[in-house]
Amino acid sequence: MPKVVVDVMPKPEILDPQGKAVLGALPRLGFSGVTDVRQGKRFELEVAGEVTEEVLADVHRMAETLLSNPVIENYAVRVEES
Amino acid sequence: MPKVVVDVMPKPEILDPQGKAVLGALPRLGFSGVTDVRQGKRFELEVAGEVTEEVLADVHRMAETLLSNPVIENYAVRVEES
Repeated sequence: MPKVVVDVMPKPEILDPQGKAVLGALPRLGFSGVTDVRQGKRFELEVAGEVTEEVLADVHRMAETLLSNPVIENYAVRVEES
Repeated sequence: MPKVVVDVMPKPEILDPQGKAVLGALPRLGFSGVTDVRQGKRFELEVAGEVTEEVLADVHRMAETLLSNPVIENYAVRVEES
């Protein structure tokens, strides 16, 4: 059954303290080579029936109003086969 | 530049109160047709240089030890062109 996935990430110009905390922990754990980390959210939505254009339009409205804060976050919607 | 993405999701058998809160809010906002919502985390890692097999093996170790809690969460690693 296909899932609709919404990725919500802090905008590039917004400070991301969670990502910075992860980035800061990496060398202490012995990892090198990662130059930046951004942390965001991932939502997996299960829909009844087919993922039509109408369903995707609805998911975009959900992403704008409920799943993300458009002032500080960007989102992306996509369909993933599971 | 390619990004390495790590998706961290609660395991299917684990209760996901954040996802349930989103699911419960949808009808109140006038949305129908979504039957389940799971909420997880998304990490975007920027690496210096090429994404080699060695880099990906490192990212898997980061995902297991720092980015996820393997008792309650699954993770997936992939490379995304930006």
